Amino acid sequence: MRLRITPRDTSFFDLLAELASHLVVGSQLLGEILGASKADRKAIGKKISEAENAADDVTHTIMRQLNSTFVTPLDRDDIAGLASALDDCMDHMEEAADLIVLYKLEEIPRKVSDQVSVLQRCSELTAEAMPHLRQMNDLSEYWVEINRLENQADKAHRKLLAQMFDEVQDPIQLMKIKEVVETLETAADAFEKVANMVETIALKES
Amino acid sequence: MRLRITPRDTSFFDLLAELASHLVVGSQLLGEILGASKADRKAIGKKISEAENAADDVTHTIMRQLNSTFVTPLDRDDIAGLASALDDCMDHMEEAADLIVLYKLEEIPRKVSDQVSVLQRCSELTAEAMPHLRQMNDLSEYWVEINRLENQADKAHRKLLAQMFDEVQDPIQLMKIKEVVETLETAADAFEKVANMVETIALKES
Amino acid sequence: MRLRITPRDTSFFDLLAELASHLVVGSQLLGEILGASKADRKAIGKKISEAENAADDVTHTIMRQLNSTFVTPLDRDDIAGLASALDDCMDHMEEAADLIVLYKLEEIPRKVSDQVSVLQRCSELTAEAMPHLRQMNDLSEYWVEINRLENQADKAHRKLLAQMFDEVQDPIQLMKIKEVVETLETAADAFEKVANMVETIALKES
Repeated sequence: MRLRITPRDTSFFDLLAELASHLVVGSQLLGEILGASKADRKAIGKKISEAENAADDVTHTIMRQLNSTFVTPLDRDDIAGLASALDDCMDHMEEAADLIVLYKLEEIPRKVSDQVSVLQRCSELTAEAMPHLRQMNDLSEYWVEINRLENQADKAHRKLLAQMFDEVQDPIQLMKIKEVVETLETAADAFEKVANMVETIALKES
Repeated sequence: MRLRITPRDTSFFDLLAELASHLVVGSQLLGEILGASKADRKAIGKKISEAENAADDVTHTIMRQLNSTFVTPLDRDDIAGLASALDDCMDHMEEAADLIVLYKLEEIPRKVSDQVSVLQRCSELTAEAMPHLRQMNDLSEYWVEINRLENQADKAHRKLLAQMFDEVQDPIQLMKIKEVVETLETAADAFEKVANMVETIALKES
Repeated sequence: MRLRITPRDTSFFDLLAELASHLVVGSQLLGEILGASKADRKAIGKKISEAENAADDVTHTIMRQLNSTFVTPLDRDDIAGLASALDDCMDHMEEAADLIVLYKLEEIPRKVSDQVSVLQRCSELTAEAMPHLRQMNDLSEYWVEINRLENQADKAHRKLLAQMFDEVQDPIQLMKIKEVVETLETAADAFEKVANMVETIALKES
């Protein structure tokens, strides 16, 4: 029998990367729900909830492991903060999906899918960035690009709202769509928060 | 005459517990305002404002005392952060009460009282948890339970909104109720932030 | 040729003061846009965007300089946090201006200009406070006054909303104005966050 003296494979970096991978799945499903018929939305919404539960589980594993690990590769509260910020991204995407199901929206403005494309790109960039935390290298492109995407999304979202105010006649319908659009924008903000957190950590560790 | 060499009774832990006790009062009054006639709401709203002022006073006492104390039992900014997060819970509950008074709501959907019950439970749990900060013991049950309550409240609040969209015909009435419901949800979020902060502090101090 | 051995003139304190000076410009332009005809709003909105870009540039300079400076006069993440919080004030003011342009609002309730006056006062107080960070003196009046202004603004904003709900008949018009009013309130909150951050820093450094 061999002693295991190397650390466990699932390090904090691996766990953060795993957490981010659930965001990629969630954002893909969010794209699917937009294109789906009202009848199919519920089933896709359920899959997003499963992705959210999976993300929750990883977050709790990270927190528990932080609690029982003596030496951590980054500051304890940076790891905890990052895990919780990644989890927030998932929560807002899941909320948007849930609202689409619950509000039984007839028509979703086509530009909403541009918002979801941004979230998909943010998820991918974030998942690619996590492994680089280990060496703190090549991260500046990531946060610059996320900030650029979020700025772009922010302008697009305001124009979309203004356009909806002109086009949608039924105020109640308008309120529903507005809330979906704003929840998607909050999800994009959440990705920006992760990127800013990574920037701050890199600053501190450099 | 005896010299007083022991520290003052009102330690930071006592002050945080006192602050949390105002949240218990506030959440009870919030329950009362829901059941009250429109004529009685104003008087109850005034009592909630008083509870909010009392919470403000304790928060300022904590900040002043932090400023004049050399050795603190927890990190200075953790105590400041916790006081300010507790104060936020109160502010959101007071805001919800104020909106109920100002908007002269005719009918408040019955499920809103479920939201307030959650806030009452959160207040009690938070007030019970504060004294345990001293020894950092038995706190994990508290934050797990608050997180569970908040998740539950979050799902319930979305379903409530969807139901209101189906039932309330007048869009302006709908906007008013929606804002009250969302402010109550923000208050529940604020309790979760306190719990997460306690978890982070416990993590760091352990 | 003389060697330059003194540090560069643009210290972090100067940069933070410069950042705050853009807030003063932004809040002045926000006042102008309220009084302007619909035709003139776009041009003023563009000037606010320019002020926002200028603020962004200073923020990035601060972040870059933090990255390349070995000894900083305050904690690295306090400077980063403060820069980012000041930048948030600008972003919310710019967002409010952008919404006023995009929503082509016919009439803006007169009390909205009270909200903007508060933002102008907050900007001035913040710009005056920044140079005092160097010696950490005379700052308590600043944060007490900002907190007082924000509390006042918060009450005023709720009353304004309640009044609008009574007066504005068209729900879509109401939704537009409500969003402008709430964005201005978020800007006031952002100034309070800066003040609270300054208070926490002063507490820590004292």
